[in-house]
Amino acid sequence: MEKEVKYPLLETINSPSDLRKLPEKQLPQLCKELRNFIIDSLANNPGHFASSLGSVELTVALHYVYSTPEDKIVWDVGHQAYGHKILTGRRDRFHTNRKLGGIKPFPSPDESEYDSFVAGHASNSISAALGLSAAATLEGRNEHVVAVIGDGSMSGGLAYEGLNNLSATPNNLLIIMNDNNMSISDSVGGMKQLLISMHSSKTYNKVRYAIAKGLRKMHILNERRANAVIRFNNGLKAMLFRKHNFFEGMSARYFGPINGHDVHELVRMLRSIKDMKGPRMLHIRTTKGKGWEPAEKNATVWHQPGIFDIETGERIVTEGGSPRFQDVFGETLVELAKADERIVGITPAMPTGCSMNKLADVFPNRCFDVGIAEGHAVTFSAGLAKGGAIPFCNIYSSFMQRGYDNLIHDVALQRLNFVLCLDRAGLVGEDGPTHHGAYDLAYLRPVPNITISSPYDECELRRLMYTAVQPGAGSFVIRYPRGKGTLVDWRCPLETVEVGKGRCITEGTDVALLTLGPIGKVMEEAVAQAKKQGVSVAHYDMRFLKPIDTDILRKVGENFKYVITLEDGTVKGGLGSAVLEYMAAHGYTPKVEIMGIPDEFIEHGAPEELYRLCKMDKEDVLRAILKFKEK
Amino acid sequence: MEKEVKYPLLETINSPSDLRKLPEKQLPQLCKELRNFIIDSLANNPGHFASSLGSVELTVALHYVYSTPEDKIVWDVGHQAYGHKILTGRRDRFHTNRKLGGIKPFPSPDESEYDSFVAGHASNSISAALGLSAAATLEGRNEHVVAVIGDGSMSGGLAYEGLNNLSATPNNLLIIMNDNNMSISDSVGGMKQLLISMHSSKTYNKVRYAIAKGLRKMHILNERRANAVIRFNNGLKAMLFRKHNFFEGMSARYFGPINGHDVHELVRMLRSIKDMKGPRMLHIRTTKGKGWEPAEKNATVWHQPGIFDIETGERIVTEGGSPRFQDVFGETLVELAKADERIVGITPAMPTGCSMNKLADVFPNRCFDVGIAEGHAVTFSAGLAKGGAIPFCNIYSSFMQRGYDNLIHDVALQRLNFVLCLDRAGLVGEDGPTHHGAYDLAYLRPVPNITISSPYDECELRRLMYTAVQPGAGSFVIRYPRGKGTLVDWRCPLETVEVGKGRCITEGTDVALLTLGPIGKVMEEAVAQAKKQGVSVAHYDMRFLKPIDTDILRKVGENFKYVITLEDGTVKGGLGSAVLEYMAAHGYTPKVEIMGIPDEFIEHGAPEELYRLCKMDKEDVLRAILKFKEK
Repeated sequence: MEKEVKYPLLETINSPSDLRKLPEKQLPQLCKELRNFIIDSLANNPGHFASSLGSVELTVALHYVYSTPEDKIVWDVGHQAYGHKILTGRRDRFHTNRKLGGIKPFPSPDESEYDSFVAGHASNSISAALGLSAAATLEGRNEHVVAVIGDGSMSGGLAYEGLNNLSATPNNLLIIMNDNNMSISDSVGGMKQLLISMHSSKTYNKVRYAIAKGLRKMHILNERRANAVIRFNNGLKAMLFRKHNFFEGMSARYFGPINGHDVHELVRMLRSIKDMKGPRMLHIRTTKGKGWEPAEKNATVWHQPGIFDIETGERIVTEGGSPRFQDVFGETLVELAKADERIVGITPAMPTGCSMNKLADVFPNRCFDVGIAEGHAVTFSAGLAKGGAIPFCNIYSSFMQRGYDNLIHDVALQRLNFVLCLDRAGLVGEDGPTHHGAYDLAYLRPVPNITISSPYDECELRRLMYTAVQPGAGSFVIRYPRGKGTLVDWRCPLETVEVGKGRCITEGTDVALLTLGPIGKVMEEAVAQAKKQGVSVAHYDMRFLKPIDTDILRKVGENFKYVITLEDGTVKGGLGSAVLEYMAAHGYTPKVEIMGIPDEFIEHGAPEELYRLCKMDKEDVLRAILKFKEK
Repeated sequence: MEKEVKYPLLETINSPSDLRKLPEKQLPQLCKELRNFIIDSLANNPGHFASSLGSVELTVALHYVYSTPEDKIVWDVGHQAYGHKILTGRRDRFHTNRKLGGIKPFPSPDESEYDSFVAGHASNSISAALGLSAAATLEGRNEHVVAVIGDGSMSGGLAYEGLNNLSATPNNLLIIMNDNNMSISDSVGGMKQLLISMHSSKTYNKVRYAIAKGLRKMHILNERRANAVIRFNNGLKAMLFRKHNFFEGMSARYFGPINGHDVHELVRMLRSIKDMKGPRMLHIRTTKGKGWEPAEKNATVWHQPGIFDIETGERIVTEGGSPRFQDVFGETLVELAKADERIVGITPAMPTGCSMNKLADVFPNRCFDVGIAEGHAVTFSAGLAKGGAIPFCNIYSSFMQRGYDNLIHDVALQRLNFVLCLDRAGLVGEDGPTHHGAYDLAYLRPVPNITISSPYDECELRRLMYTAVQPGAGSFVIRYPRGKGTLVDWRCPLETVEVGKGRCITEGTDVALLTLGPIGKVMEEAVAQAKKQGVSVAHYDMRFLKPIDTDILRKVGENFKYVITLEDGTVKGGLGSAVLEYMAAHGYTPKVEIMGIPDEFIEHGAPEELYRLCKMDKEDVLRAILKFKEK
């Protein structure tokens, strides 16, 4: 019974109602066990680490004070929600976190009634929680809704749009701002603390009038101005806490900042503001990685550290083999930037995720991390391009869904020289349905004036990047997947490729296989296997979805009766659709089989199963090729 | 020479360099003439009216003080840029505004070097101008960049993301906040005025320390708190004007508010802050519709009033005939809301544009105008849906590009009961390329768990809306075009249609015509005409793009060798692609012709030419049908 010795209190908590039966004095012990449970679990089963350690006390306090699941907690992003998962009946399954068929990486209403709203993409919690609260208010239900948002997510425009609407409708929303960013300085926090104690006591008015009186006495201000000071203080409150629009205030009562690792203080504060009416904001200060020293010291590395040694505190990193696509991007960008000083990099809060930190190391003033703000990243890049720079804007494919209008309106309509690199395109494995980059090919293809490409391998990524900075290259999209490529020796010379031209990988006579991106490389083996089984496959790497290589398509239309298209994206609207459209428009009638990510698989996925799940493993493709024999 | 008598000064201004030769004392006269020119022009040639009248003095002052086009003005939205167009060489062509082949409705770099960046969709100016300014700074060009943004556009998250990044990179950006909204109260303005005079004089520090000293003297605050007051004032400045993130400030120096109709004051202020380094914000107060009394009184009506009588000041409105789709939406929503109290309406700043004001009139607490904030509109609606309400979220199709991620992440993944109505779908005519709702069918089709529909006529719109609120209807998109429908008697009973089922409009044997939406209704005449010419057309109204009616598709695949698909959207990825995919997957090989909006037409368009331009007028469709005979 060693396990019980390790987490005696935690093991009695099978739901928040168990938690609420505890005397408050036991909460620190529960927090300690919960924290250790998270550390022990993640040492062996990797996941998001530092955020959840920082929110242990908050999680315990929230479920202790609020009657979840009737009361609703909306976690922003959800990196910080492991404690929440463990306390809400998922402790015994927590070792399956991020695994195929296991518990999901982010809060998901499909998984638990305690997960009030979907999470994964940042900054949605305030808008979502406001909707939940407004619905409850309309129906006269007396339920509490709490949004928990980190300071990082506050840079997203969506969070601002949510705040901006707090006053628009009756609601009892509590927003908890989980502030773990050292860039928010103590002095600003101290200022807030003062303001709040003024605000929450009768002293406030006394101070306010005293200031005005004092100023008048000192003859610094005349009467009119002294009165203005009084308005000033009212206006200040309005501006800080009652913003109806950007200048009017957010309309929320503000509390804090308080120590987010003092569970008693959290319980006390939550209880005292729980039944207030109207929107409120509670500002708590926490330490990302709290309780695990290496993580406290370097929260960035320990955001998602992989597995680590619980005794030494050292991360267990396996290096070697081929590099990740992101590394090739990052290194190549530096090479290009050294050769052309117009080249700049833009990333919305993913400098390490997309390896743009390499550019920042060499040319800090030419690398812009704009925070979680995909729309701005694209429009700002468009401005840079219009001003003569050559921007490489790197955004994860699924997050680019936030910059879609910006691409159409601010980039494509102006035909700007602009390079958009979409990392994490295709299925992403453990991060799950919210993070799949499945739609980009389909949503980008109808946009006019843009080039859409995907590299076959790491060298092709370099060539496409080099091609994209040539004069007149226009608006150029390069999409590539998460993870490693296939080449160890990837540092090929930087050469251009012809825009709109694919290439033949293998000549063949029976079946034409048209692939886009690294998934084609993976399938070389299936093509070789098919040959052994007597089917001769002509394999084309299309390279470009748009403009599509019509020479290849004409050749295929003329010479093949059976065509397979293969892409690491939704089967609707991408390469397969483009090929069908060409064939229909030109009167060719081959049988075309479209392979890609079907709808039903977008909602699942796990790394080891990735290719199987997206219907693109070698066996599947081989099977499709061998169908030729049945004819 | 009556014209010269009317605008003697304006007629000498053929470019801003002419303007800059004028002595400053002539500017008020020029403003007067420019204002009258706008009024006279728009009386006969309708367009956006009130905004441009409000920005006359600002426009003159900007071009007077800045060396355009080397210095750059970025107009947000561009409703207010008529004066700019007239002063920058487009006066003689201004009567062609918003006409086919005429000058464009919004600033467009394609049209003039004075139009520094594309405009049309709100809130992009700060991000774009920041990019322009950062590029100039990087390249060492000493150019000025000015973004002009209205207070309405400030509700968009993109504007906030832009502000939030002002401090991230060296730039000399000036943001002019054109504040014409009465909801921004005088007292807040007065507070700002005080703050600015404090900020811009040495008195500031004196006051700051005096406050602290005074407080200490009065024993209200202890020493620690008094020092906090000093930090407070620093923090205040930081928060108001130096926001690095939401709590840290925007990092811009703030000036104003000043009277935006005093051209001398504007010139003086612009000159005094022009050569300051770093980001600055100038707050000006203007009156929308200034100088035209009816517009000053009702700026909403006079935002885009249509033609009007210059003598009486009365709008010339032609009523009668069939209603607009938006009216049918608005009235039907009220009917539905009366029958089911869970139904609510959400619009991002388009209550009159989409006729949701009808709901607001009857159920003000069930109608949410969230401001220009499409992402929030969708996620907030998702929260309402999760909380038990049935939201009708109405967004113009092209603006929905801003809510794409929200639809995927917050709605579709949760399979919420949610109705998304996309008004202005398809080509929109005068508003031009930025506003075409051309992409929605293509970008929505790959999204899982959603239904996508388009009504054949007004009655079908009512039926689809009714169908969308039935239990289990899920996430339901209804898209319909700008303008009028075809029925006068549209108040049919509210009945459901079967989801995923289309219907046969005309039986036929030679050609199958598959249409989606009201464009099908328009083509009935072409079908009748074809019959007279000996071609029998089977016309199907598909009604649903997703789930698509596979019974119709199978019947068509089995019985027809020639199929035409017709949609009011891009030819890539929509109905045509869906039909091709079905035929390919099921081994049918009809010749399929896809008709819709080709890339090259998305960048043009005018109302009287709408159907011709999108290749969907009756003659074109008839011609496509008659191709059958050639076989």
